[in-house]
Amino acid sequence: MAGHSILLAAVSVQSACQQSYFALHVGKARLKYEVTPLAVSGSPEFERIFCAQQNCVEFYPIFLITLWMAGWYFNQVFATCLGLVYYIRRQYFWGYSEAAKKRITGFRLSLGSLALLTVLGVLGIANSFLDEYLDLNVAKKRRHF
Amino acid sequence: MAGHSILLAAVSVQSACQQSYFALHVGKARLKYEVTPLAVSGSPEFERIFCAQQNCVEFYPIFLITLWMAGWYFNQVFATCLGLVYYIRRQYFWGYSEAAKKRITGFRLSLGSLALLTVLGVLGIANSFLDEYLDLNVAKKRRHF
Amino acid sequence: MAGHSILLAAVSVQSACQQSYFALHVGKARLKYEVTPLAVSGSPEFERIFCAQQNCVEFYPIFLITLWMAGWYFNQVFATCLGLVYYIRRQYFWGYSEAAKKRITGFRLSLGSLALLTVLGVLGIANSFLDEYLDLNVAKKRRHF
Repeated sequence: MAGHSILLAAVSVQSACQQSYFALHVGKARLKYEVTPLAVSGSPEFERIFCAQQNCVEFYPIFLITLWMAGWYFNQVFATCLGLVYYIRRQYFWGYSEAAKKRITGFRLSLGSLALLTVLGVLGIANSFLDEYLDLNVAKKRRHF
Repeated sequence: MAGHSILLAAVSVQSACQQSYFALHVGKARLKYEVTPLAVSGSPEFERIFCAQQNCVEFYPIFLITLWMAGWYFNQVFATCLGLVYYIRRQYFWGYSEAAKKRITGFRLSLGSLALLTVLGVLGIANSFLDEYLDLNVAKKRRHF
Repeated sequence: MAGHSILLAAVSVQSACQQSYFALHVGKARLKYEVTPLAVSGSPEFERIFCAQQNCVEFYPIFLITLWMAGWYFNQVFATCLGLVYYIRRQYFWGYSEAAKKRITGFRLSLGSLALLTVLGVLGIANSFLDEYLDLNVAKKRRHF
């Protein structure tokens, strides 16, 4: 199976780098806006960056699990493309850092791709479930794991 | 292996939906109690919802990894049932939103199911470990992956 | 594949226990320093513990995904060792609880092991990618999944 998850693995590692980068960026912002390591508020600029990063942190496990489920049970290539669209969340992050109102475009795209990943995952799991337990194969050509 | 993780996959996708729902609920609560997107405090009702969601976010990766480990190395059906019990955390979430003291029942159930998942995961991994490296098979009928 | 991920599974379950322990420790600290369940500030000691735990929560999904990717696509034993080094983050946690300035040693070690895990994951994925799609095998002896 490992050979059939390469694209998913690549997207996952890339997203892990991105998340780490966000976390380091928050650390730098702390120094820049002179916010002590324990405080989470003080400067409006820092607060915006911090909130944007918190939002990414919150959604990261949801993103990972839906990516892998959609990739394993539906189609790896589709899931990978949606995973890449999710990176426009990065734009959301930056948009948010600049001004809270600019975040909307990136937010919609990232939420849309997440919702689509979930739908694909549900469809794929439902198909595998029917195939496994009821011996019904809805999609005639099941992709091989 | 994909065919043998369908139940785990289903629980994972469902929990991802639940987490997203919680996040969106917090967003709605922001609008309702007129808390700006950057603030995390202001209204006691909003603070309760926010804290409950933060708690869920914190435990979500722990839940996912113990679910999959227990499912892969111990027994998929047991792990799935415990995963479903964990949803009573949802009740915890709502209980918490209403009053901090009501959270106890849901909290205990969710923590108990998480602890049990961890124990099952540890047992399953220990068994696989003995089987793999020391050629000892504790459970006579090893489930096939 | 399950049999070839035992070490990764063991490290994952151990890290899940550690994360739960941190979360419970924060709960105890709330009682000790008399911080109400909804507040995140009040006592400097509590704030330090809370921030340290938040930092761990933030990096936990990143750690898990890089651990598994490095383990699956590069080498399980290497990834496991780095995963164990990451536990020195625990020291970071305690160091942080005591004083914000003491955190540096643990932080560097944990960040270094995370970076190395990511690099190993990228190398392993790149090798598998070349092998799978371009029929080039860079590492002559590919480990078998």
